[in-house]
Amino acid sequence: MDPLAQHSSETRTVSPLDDDHFHDECGVFGVFNHPDAAALTALGLHALQHRGQEAAGIVSDDGDIFHSHRALGSVGDNFNTENVIDRLKGSLAIGHVRYSTAGGSTAMRNIQPLYADLVFGGFAIAHNGNLTNARTCRRDLVERGCIFQSTSDTETILHRIATSRHRKVIDRFIDALRGVTGAYSLVALTRQKMYGVRDPFGVRPLVLGRIGDGWVLASETCALDIIGAEFERDIEPGEMVIISEDGVKSYKPFAPVEPKFCIFEYIYFARPDSVIGDRNVYSVRKQIGAELARESHVDADMVVPVPDSGVPAAIGYAAESGIPFDLGIIRSHYMGRTFIQPSDKIRNLGVKLKHNANRSWVKGKRIILVDDSIVRGTTSLKIVEMMRNAGAKEVHMRISSPPTTHPCYYGIDTPNKDKLMAHRMSVEEMAKHIGADSLAFITHDGLYRAVGEEKRNSECPQFCDACFTGDYPIPLVDKDGDPGPEQLTLLSEG
Amino acid sequence: MDPLAQHSSETRTVSPLDDDHFHDECGVFGVFNHPDAAALTALGLHALQHRGQEAAGIVSDDGDIFHSHRALGSVGDNFNTENVIDRLKGSLAIGHVRYSTAGGSTAMRNIQPLYADLVFGGFAIAHNGNLTNARTCRRDLVERGCIFQSTSDTETILHRIATSRHRKVIDRFIDALRGVTGAYSLVALTRQKMYGVRDPFGVRPLVLGRIGDGWVLASETCALDIIGAEFERDIEPGEMVIISEDGVKSYKPFAPVEPKFCIFEYIYFARPDSVIGDRNVYSVRKQIGAELARESHVDADMVVPVPDSGVPAAIGYAAESGIPFDLGIIRSHYMGRTFIQPSDKIRNLGVKLKHNANRSWVKGKRIILVDDSIVRGTTSLKIVEMMRNAGAKEVHMRISSPPTTHPCYYGIDTPNKDKLMAHRMSVEEMAKHIGADSLAFITHDGLYRAVGEEKRNSECPQFCDACFTGDYPIPLVDKDGDPGPEQLTLLSEG
Amino acid sequence: MDPLAQHSSETRTVSPLDDDHFHDECGVFGVFNHPDAAALTALGLHALQHRGQEAAGIVSDDGDIFHSHRALGSVGDNFNTENVIDRLKGSLAIGHVRYSTAGGSTAMRNIQPLYADLVFGGFAIAHNGNLTNARTCRRDLVERGCIFQSTSDTETILHRIATSRHRKVIDRFIDALRGVTGAYSLVALTRQKMYGVRDPFGVRPLVLGRIGDGWVLASETCALDIIGAEFERDIEPGEMVIISEDGVKSYKPFAPVEPKFCIFEYIYFARPDSVIGDRNVYSVRKQIGAELARESHVDADMVVPVPDSGVPAAIGYAAESGIPFDLGIIRSHYMGRTFIQPSDKIRNLGVKLKHNANRSWVKGKRIILVDDSIVRGTTSLKIVEMMRNAGAKEVHMRISSPPTTHPCYYGIDTPNKDKLMAHRMSVEEMAKHIGADSLAFITHDGLYRAVGEEKRNSECPQFCDACFTGDYPIPLVDKDGDPGPEQLTLLSEG
Amino acid sequence: MDPLAQHSSETRTVSPLDDDHFHDECGVFGVFNHPDAAALTALGLHALQHRGQEAAGIVSDDGDIFHSHRALGSVGDNFNTENVIDRLKGSLAIGHVRYSTAGGSTAMRNIQPLYADLVFGGFAIAHNGNLTNARTCRRDLVERGCIFQSTSDTETILHRIATSRHRKVIDRFIDALRGVTGAYSLVALTRQKMYGVRDPFGVRPLVLGRIGDGWVLASETCALDIIGAEFERDIEPGEMVIISEDGVKSYKPFAPVEPKFCIFEYIYFARPDSVIGDRNVYSVRKQIGAELARESHVDADMVVPVPDSGVPAAIGYAAESGIPFDLGIIRSHYMGRTFIQPSDKIRNLGVKLKHNANRSWVKGKRIILVDDSIVRGTTSLKIVEMMRNAGAKEVHMRISSPPTTHPCYYGIDTPNKDKLMAHRMSVEEMAKHIGADSLAFITHDGLYRAVGEEKRNSECPQFCDACFTGDYPIPLVDKDGDPGPEQLTLLSEG
Repeated sequence: MDPLAQHSSETRTVSPLDDDHFHDECGVFGVFNHPDAAALTALGLHALQHRGQEAAGIVSDDGDIFHSHRALGSVGDNFNTENVIDRLKGSLAIGHVRYSTAGGSTAMRNIQPLYADLVFGGFAIAHNGNLTNARTCRRDLVERGCIFQSTSDTETILHRIATSRHRKVIDRFIDALRGVTGAYSLVALTRQKMYGVRDPFGVRPLVLGRIGDGWVLASETCALDIIGAEFERDIEPGEMVIISEDGVKSYKPFAPVEPKFCIFEYIYFARPDSVIGDRNVYSVRKQIGAELARESHVDADMVVPVPDSGVPAAIGYAAESGIPFDLGIIRSHYMGRTFIQPSDKIRNLGVKLKHNANRSWVKGKRIILVDDSIVRGTTSLKIVEMMRNAGAKEVHMRISSPPTTHPCYYGIDTPNKDKLMAHRMSVEEMAKHIGADSLAFITHDGLYRAVGEEKRNSECPQFCDACFTGDYPIPLVDKDGDPGPEQLTLLSEG
Repeated sequence: MDPLAQHSSETRTVSPLDDDHFHDECGVFGVFNHPDAAALTALGLHALQHRGQEAAGIVSDDGDIFHSHRALGSVGDNFNTENVIDRLKGSLAIGHVRYSTAGGSTAMRNIQPLYADLVFGGFAIAHNGNLTNARTCRRDLVERGCIFQSTSDTETILHRIATSRHRKVIDRFIDALRGVTGAYSLVALTRQKMYGVRDPFGVRPLVLGRIGDGWVLASETCALDIIGAEFERDIEPGEMVIISEDGVKSYKPFAPVEPKFCIFEYIYFARPDSVIGDRNVYSVRKQIGAELARESHVDADMVVPVPDSGVPAAIGYAAESGIPFDLGIIRSHYMGRTFIQPSDKIRNLGVKLKHNANRSWVKGKRIILVDDSIVRGTTSLKIVEMMRNAGAKEVHMRISSPPTTHPCYYGIDTPNKDKLMAHRMSVEEMAKHIGADSLAFITHDGLYRAVGEEKRNSECPQFCDACFTGDYPIPLVDKDGDPGPEQLTLLSEG
Repeated sequence: MDPLAQHSSETRTVSPLDDDHFHDECGVFGVFNHPDAAALTALGLHALQHRGQEAAGIVSDDGDIFHSHRALGSVGDNFNTENVIDRLKGSLAIGHVRYSTAGGSTAMRNIQPLYADLVFGGFAIAHNGNLTNARTCRRDLVERGCIFQSTSDTETILHRIATSRHRKVIDRFIDALRGVTGAYSLVALTRQKMYGVRDPFGVRPLVLGRIGDGWVLASETCALDIIGAEFERDIEPGEMVIISEDGVKSYKPFAPVEPKFCIFEYIYFARPDSVIGDRNVYSVRKQIGAELARESHVDADMVVPVPDSGVPAAIGYAAESGIPFDLGIIRSHYMGRTFIQPSDKIRNLGVKLKHNANRSWVKGKRIILVDDSIVRGTTSLKIVEMMRNAGAKEVHMRISSPPTTHPCYYGIDTPNKDKLMAHRMSVEEMAKHIGADSLAFITHDGLYRAVGEEKRNSECPQFCDACFTGDYPIPLVDKDGDPGPEQLTLLSEG
Repeated sequence: MDPLAQHSSETRTVSPLDDDHFHDECGVFGVFNHPDAAALTALGLHALQHRGQEAAGIVSDDGDIFHSHRALGSVGDNFNTENVIDRLKGSLAIGHVRYSTAGGSTAMRNIQPLYADLVFGGFAIAHNGNLTNARTCRRDLVERGCIFQSTSDTETILHRIATSRHRKVIDRFIDALRGVTGAYSLVALTRQKMYGVRDPFGVRPLVLGRIGDGWVLASETCALDIIGAEFERDIEPGEMVIISEDGVKSYKPFAPVEPKFCIFEYIYFARPDSVIGDRNVYSVRKQIGAELARESHVDADMVVPVPDSGVPAAIGYAAESGIPFDLGIIRSHYMGRTFIQPSDKIRNLGVKLKHNANRSWVKGKRIILVDDSIVRGTTSLKIVEMMRNAGAKEVHMRISSPPTTHPCYYGIDTPNKDKLMAHRMSVEEMAKHIGADSLAFITHDGLYRAVGEEKRNSECPQFCDACFTGDYPIPLVDKDGDPGPEQLTLLSEG
């Protein structure tokens, strides 16, 4: 009765979450002087959830003791009960969302904010970014007798503060930061004081807002919006702010350098409704779409975004080109974590769990697919095939970033260089590989025009664009000194 | 230090899920003759998740015994492990997703497919729709000594089959269905046979597909797409198909009536990539948007969809009107179930958890908001206010359904009539209430034109549109005979 | 470095719970007219936990609706929170503990009390015992169209009540019971009435107690003690009591027969502090020990109980023989459900998880081990070996029951006949098999003397002793008519 | 209908676990060179479960990395799956059980073994005992920049090792221990080496065993028995053993002092089947019972143990006095953690959840109750009342320890001094308070005789008996220097 029964019985699972993107690793948030500090922080982190979905934590300060709650999973799953929020007493709180934490309780230990009882009292810290000399620093500290509990490079900063010879907290903090290199946007808490810092290059975002008589720090402005806080200003590259009863004090403890904000925040990481560096992210993305349309025009019947991240650029492309914007792919938002792959007959299940071709609409049409980036190329290949299977006559792929040829070491989760399709292939090869009739990426200069620059200044680029160019503005200390992988802890915890 | 501390300490929680829509109550799926029947059913139900997110169940038949797994929560959370899928042995399986099930284990008992050992063997059934004489039937059956385990009206059909005096399964099934009235699209399973039935009016959808040598039944074609099945045809109103080793046999056991397919499936319930009655749902929605633009034009700077359900109509509206389509509202897809409402200062938190104004883009603009329906009006009011707070100069609301003035009794979860804004107010009053500069709904005829009819046939409407008109095509037996609410079971289970 | 590394890598798990005993399958409890009815029922079930540890349930009646909570696991794990107890509103409640329920939600459905909405209102029932014609009854009922939800034979009674042609509840209940054969001690609930019934032979215990103005039904008196209720009397064999506002009414609806109380309740099932049939269970067990000492004296240095069930008989044996009572085996009460068997080098791990020889005390001594029964013999073999390994010079085994040669069909979980060691071997063979220097069981007459009879009346035994004799007082309808195993439901639920 | 309904609606819960005993705080175990090291460690910890039920942990070393699993709850609940045991790879493992850990993830951090990556590699440590200068040490270490993650005083030793200026691990370990005072029996692990240490006074037990070619360390010999290991010898007070490929090396790094083994281990903490200092614990307890019988004879009908800890002394008392040993109290072993206290009418619910009078046996009898100790007196009062309510004619209480007048600072959980009944009352007052007809404790000399000494040497007691005498052999540094309570961390974690 069952002619298919002889198929391989090997079961495989398919994850709909493997979506072939670079991923921002963290978002940070803090509130000073509000009776609902923890609840506001939970909301702020919810608005920053796109910057990290795997774990979340909040530390609050009630003036007497600090309170902490950290959990694997989303903010909405872990910080939505009165029980949890009521425990996080106090009018100061900082919080953190994290992209990825493997393992069991090791993972728990890596959830930020990190907290320690130091000689001057409690200290909590949350970090967006990545230190490029964390391993080197850690080795020095362990030699001095420091015991690391996490594998997070943020703990390096904590130990440097704990062992600093300075007496005042601010001096210890600055002393600690002067010894590290890398990208960091930090929020921190001591008794009744909140700190915000951006590294000298200002690679990752950090903004200051106001709510009533209180203050807010957040990775993006969308997190101010959700709590009704007003945007005050960006924290500047190399700036440390200390917020206390005396208001906001600003320090510039580092030698000044040319800022290198991450241009990929505009392309993909930030939420479209955020404003960074006076630019609305949605409007930048539409501009990129328009530039793309001008740079690589092709005749077609419709412009189809790869949902959801391709939508703004597709709108810009359609508006510029005059070709209709249409939903040729429908996205499901009901995601589990894995699914059983039922048999080899079902091609591209992973992509189908999230996307489905709008078959009867696509059939017989010439399609321009707009997506934000191609990393490994796995999804692009499947999406193009899905369009062809649905009967598309032509499939043209347009990408709103330049080819991603280099990994990021500044707080973005990227594959190794040899996994990057653009590192291994020319654009023509890529087009052929993914099966598109044509493939085009925005040019470097097109991208810089879209963010309002005349063109990329190749002497001293206005942004960090290392993933497109390999120009790494901050020294890769661990990598250069010690290229091999290294186990940060000998412990496997379950 | 804290001037806000005197605010009420009463904590409230806010649900981002209360989204002011009618909700489809169920989706059904079935596979006949495939070695991975249960895995395919899980995938099919995943594609139907928009029809019900609260509970899911699958019953399979391995030719010897039946296997069942039912759980509260999404398909992806409950049917994603080898452990679960491997237990659901057999090449036949049916499944069900359900919109809402309150309570603890009572809820568990209500999760479908229902299963019973009847005198002829095992029988499993899953139901999309609602019986209008379920209560009356139930009373009769209890008097005859039947013991109900659930409060689901589907169990009525089960007991009618169990107690039918006919001998053959098909005769019992038909006998049972002839005694019930209402809307139903059913899938059922007996040993090595699968059944599909649509009520005489064909209110809810049901389609037949093919996969390899096997057959598939599904509420919508998008569930065929995910498993790579080919669409064969709609099950017809009043048709029963029996799928066995001998192929698909079709029966028409009911007196023929004019079909009354639910027109709201086109407006909101079905997924845009599905094809129902030869119409692509996305294309109908674009048509509605275009009709709306023609019927109620207004000058503006951009057309903004209320995401995600307003998007296709907004695209149609924008294309027809020539006004740019733009994302003025950004939706978050990281939803928890509730959040703490931190204080009265934060207005409209519920809506903000899901939507945020794209402030800097909206500021100073004249906006046309496009949404699919207004039920209670709660969300519309907040969305309009959100646009105004973001600085919109004008806010015009356009709705891609006629005013919803009546509840549904055919398988859609709707509020009582007096909760329906359109029942209590004129369109002008509604516009004023939600604070819009103008408000317009698609007309009845405009809607019928969008689905391809010349106009609504008021003698005998081509669709069920009772929620817009109060013309209920199927008798409301329980309601008319016995208007008050009634407790279906004396048991409260926890 | 590791000379043992070549051992088999096959991992096995060992359960400390497989303790080679017959097991009582259930305990029942009920409270009428007490404001804390559910809390008292939870306590009563806790005191009856030795009668069933796998699942527990309570149904209460608040005069308006019934409330139910049922769970896998112990009473203390599931009915210990205010949350659960507060939900079980009302001054009437009945409860049940259950020995064994395999599977997932099937298991859930089998947890008692069973509840149904019948034509006269809600009805809840809990059962200790086993029907011997349940399968036959069930087949009849299914043919009439009844749908069974559980595999429990208790549901048979429920359907017989539901479909009875009588009008009054009591008449339906009696009608239902007249059609079933087997052993049953039942408690049941309808709106503001509580019922207690023992089958005509009175195989399983059931007692009536008083608390304040309220009444209590319980399997054993120890459950009255825990709530401070006073023992009133045993419910008589064949008696039905109905407790209502009008007090306790007694009915004798069955033809009278000679009672056959289960004599094994005295040997092992009941708690030693219970009083059944005017006999204190502890005192009966000491008497059995004394009889054993008289019947099968042997010289030794100490009498060692196999803890805990062998303790009372060992005390009786020691007192009668003058040989000191000593703890030669120490029992651990911290039990998990399974443990990994680390290697073949570790013999008898299962028994060691629960028992350890008191080595230095046992060494060089002649030991009389006293245990209550030998079922498969697996534990006895290991215990004897454990004593020998600890250096015991002689090991004599004395058993406070006659050899168990036959399975029980009246509510006790027993292995198949061919698994019973005493069915397959003579006493001498058994002694040799378990490695004891001598082995003796109490004689039938010795046992009857210990419970106060002169001797066993072989014409008409004063108790049910079928497991020792094969004299089954109640017909084994299902077994005789239909000897093979049969699947009660075609469903496997997970 | 309900005359009791007006009772106070205030609900209370009652814990059956509050059993008025001193509690040992920990047990330790370790295996060197066995392929199933983790499985054996789980079994060993299971046998030591009486030394701590709240949390358990194991760290193993596979020669490459260390593996850790730590959990709240019993060993049997957390280390019984292949999944967990298989992860704990390696032929070396150490483990720990812990009596009490309050709170959520703070508690998690306090579960031992503690682990750290130190400059020389991984280091794991588990501790039975208590440091009396932990707070003072910790303050010094924090000033030097150490970051504590737990509130456990064991972490003090870890940081002292991490920051020691010595190079070799053994020198660091000894350096660290020389700076701490208190009671400790430690097991520790570095790469392929296992360490065992007892403090100079040898307050807590630690034994060495052999299994095949491997070695075992354990708090008690009962943990050797369960895995079939052979007892080799006690680790001596002040001894450190290092077990490696080269075998067991012994060091004596501390200045020699007179040993002070905790005499209460013989009375209550250790398991009766263990052998400590060449004395079988069961036999010591019987001796204490016999001494008690000689010292404080009283005429009675039976000797009744308070189960389970009173049993061995009661057997000794009965044997010496010639009065029959009988079970007048039955203990339930099915414990939940809390129960709802249903109403004020039910006296002594807490004690009844665990104990029930064997009413019909006790009635009219003169009873000698034997228990091991009286701490607060709460249980004794209820047990005496329970005997009286059951109809006992006389109730004489005999206690197998001297009056406990002082708290322990050496690793035993004891109440504050003013909670100790014997600190506040004379023996006569205690007898009156608990309602006993007479009350007697073993004398100090009687106790010393029972353990084989002629009498207590009051100049230099042969054991630590500080809880009976106030003679604390080890300086109470934190207590004397800094009497007030102090918060060890400013963090409250949830």
